[in-house]
Amino acid sequence: MVDIATRVYNHKWKIDPIVRSLIDTDFYKLLMCQSVFRNKPDTEVSFSIINRSTDIRLAELIDEGELREQLDHIRTLRLTRGESTWLRGNTFYGKRQMFRPDFMEWYENLQLPPYTLEKRDGQYELTFEGRWPEVMMWEIPALAVLMELRGRAVLAHMGKFELQVLYARAMTKLWEKVERLKPLDKLKVADFGTRRRHSFLWQDWCVQAMMEGLGDKFVGTSNCLIAMRHDIEAIGTNAHELPMVYAALAETDAALREAPYKVLADWHEEHDGNLRIILPDTYGTRGFLDNAPDWLAGWTGIRIDSGNPFEGAETAIRWWQDRGEDPTQKLIIFSDGLDVDLIHDLYDRFKDRAKISFGWGTLLTNDFRGLVPDDGLAPFSLVCKAVSANGRPTVKLSDNPNKAMGPEAEIARYKRVFGVGEQVAREVVV
Amino acid sequence: MVDIATRVYNHKWKIDPIVRSLIDTDFYKLLMCQSVFRNKPDTEVSFSIINRSTDIRLAELIDEGELREQLDHIRTLRLTRGESTWLRGNTFYGKRQMFRPDFMEWYENLQLPPYTLEKRDGQYELTFEGRWPEVMMWEIPALAVLMELRGRAVLAHMGKFELQVLYARAMTKLWEKVERLKPLDKLKVADFGTRRRHSFLWQDWCVQAMMEGLGDKFVGTSNCLIAMRHDIEAIGTNAHELPMVYAALAETDAALREAPYKVLADWHEEHDGNLRIILPDTYGTRGFLDNAPDWLAGWTGIRIDSGNPFEGAETAIRWWQDRGEDPTQKLIIFSDGLDVDLIHDLYDRFKDRAKISFGWGTLLTNDFRGLVPDDGLAPFSLVCKAVSANGRPTVKLSDNPNKAMGPEAEIARYKRVFGVGEQVAREVVV
Repeated sequence: MVDIATRVYNHKWKIDPIVRSLIDTDFYKLLMCQSVFRNKPDTEVSFSIINRSTDIRLAELIDEGELREQLDHIRTLRLTRGESTWLRGNTFYGKRQMFRPDFMEWYENLQLPPYTLEKRDGQYELTFEGRWPEVMMWEIPALAVLMELRGRAVLAHMGKFELQVLYARAMTKLWEKVERLKPLDKLKVADFGTRRRHSFLWQDWCVQAMMEGLGDKFVGTSNCLIAMRHDIEAIGTNAHELPMVYAALAETDAALREAPYKVLADWHEEHDGNLRIILPDTYGTRGFLDNAPDWLAGWTGIRIDSGNPFEGAETAIRWWQDRGEDPTQKLIIFSDGLDVDLIHDLYDRFKDRAKISFGWGTLLTNDFRGLVPDDGLAPFSLVCKAVSANGRPTVKLSDNPNKAMGPEAEIARYKRVFGVGEQVAREVVV
Repeated sequence: MVDIATRVYNHKWKIDPIVRSLIDTDFYKLLMCQSVFRNKPDTEVSFSIINRSTDIRLAELIDEGELREQLDHIRTLRLTRGESTWLRGNTFYGKRQMFRPDFMEWYENLQLPPYTLEKRDGQYELTFEGRWPEVMMWEIPALAVLMELRGRAVLAHMGKFELQVLYARAMTKLWEKVERLKPLDKLKVADFGTRRRHSFLWQDWCVQAMMEGLGDKFVGTSNCLIAMRHDIEAIGTNAHELPMVYAALAETDAALREAPYKVLADWHEEHDGNLRIILPDTYGTRGFLDNAPDWLAGWTGIRIDSGNPFEGAETAIRWWQDRGEDPTQKLIIFSDGLDVDLIHDLYDRFKDRAKISFGWGTLLTNDFRGLVPDDGLAPFSLVCKAVSANGRPTVKLSDNPNKAMGPEAEIARYKRVFGVGEQVAREVVV
């Protein structure tokens, strides 16, 4: 029987909103936001969308009106009572009241700030300006909207059965990955795929498939809304935007050199246990670790997010050994460009040498490669980054020069300050 | 929104019926039934289920109570007004009022006769006895019920996502077949897969996928209910049960020798055009054609349903040429064990030498090979055949001795009467 009321209700939607909740975002944005809200609440920042896959001409694929409707819809969202209850009442990483009352009160009243949107050279210039805690919350929904609108543009031309078969193929593909991961006894893997997912519903399906297929080996999702709906762990720690903004705010080279450590000192005060994860690559992993204070070696683990991950993990293990720490008691989180083969290889190499965990992103939630003609649904490398703070440009060097960003002169200065020499370029797939 | 009424309505079902309509059957059963109803209405026949795949121990896989519930449910079915209207009002093979009023009146009052069910050696002995027009209507639903209950027994142990992925894989597999058939310009293919389908819903999906994927190259389905629902052609002509029962009724060897031609003489009186399709293999194609009366050469085509299909088609072409007919104006229907490779090969060889058409059966509607452990959903060779008529056993020789049936002494007698010598055995896949 057709539910007439449902049909009529659906007709009332002006658009089919891509992002329908303020917590349809990565958990680490909330952790970082709380930290920023406490330590740098009045910093004025600018965030921009950057499409590193310039051959994907988004402004020709995506209708500007539809994009504006989706972004405008996100600005109408407010934290719901149920979402607030979940954030206030839940245990994250074993800790109750992870989010302080003053932060929750602010979050309950948050409306995302205005955006500016222009077309240039076949791309959208989409920027967000304002106070850091507000602007940073745009990152994930803005990326998710652009990824999904590009997908919708391709799907719009497909027949009913073509669509059904497309998803059948995508499901089959994902399930084969899950089956290949099952035999890894000590596997710990989480969904990190919100930002470049194919769509919300697809990410939700992927998470449920991982829950059924991997059981305890699936340790959670970075997506708060999905974690809430399926009563699983919300996963994440911190990201490059913290050292990038702290560094941009530094007045001197000496202050700049200290900025990445200052980020972690602030973090140290707020968090312990599994939330003490070093992200060392913003200005080069090797220099960061060589110059790190000893208290950082006591942290729980390191996240490897660029460069050759085998080398990154070896560097981390050597560093812990040099500082008198036992690497087998440390956690290494791999989170860059993972797919099943790489997970297998990293698992085999490091499973007995450290605690390891995988944050599986785009190739979990958006592997539609090869499923439509001209590969029109293949994921691509879209990011949303802090580009300035209090009027000063931000810089990222990364362990992969293809992921570097910032004005050339500033990049040169950062390389000098952080002692970064030659770097090996690696293709950025997603 | 959940439709509460639908949920409550679903709770009222005692079982989930596999066959829900008397026209969820092959169209040719109705054509043959009408012929039998006119020519041999009082013949007492016995039909039996025969599982040629003896390694599939159905009585251990399928619960007897569930099987009885399904069969009992079929006995509660009656032709609905809408079904009757469709049969009376529709055009079949371009002809209106294909079904005579007296037949329709009889059909509208039909209840399928009782069955007897016993277990022996891990198999079910399921037999139907009574007047031919009634008993023959059991064939398709009985087969569909056994095939689907065996599938349900395997599916019962699977998780929600395992199930979803199973169907995703099956959809992908079918769609790849459809895509491989698309390039065949002059292709004509129909669904003949009711009897050994995976399930009704799956057959229905397959038909819709063929409609979207192949357009005009998909010429219809043998399933009347599915033809009615999607407003497409119902396809089919006649089958082995006619010559088998006519032959069993023959009192002398001379009458036996004439029986297969008598069937077609009766058919000739009733039907013309595309319904005049010879099924020559019941007692050996070569002898049948050699001894056939000339008027048969004037028929529209031949259906190749056993033996090597290339040789069968070559035999048919030579026969038409010998009788002064132009094979390029004749129709050859292939309907035995087809899958994409074989369709391709037959198409390439015969597309310019005759009109050709494919009745694609089990490997269209039930190709779940390789999709579950131990291949528990692979199709198998289950048939439901007339085994006696007025107390005398029936015999089938076929062009493949693995498809032969009947008492040994009778098989020998038939071989002698029809001049059948050595035959090449071919594996019966489905």
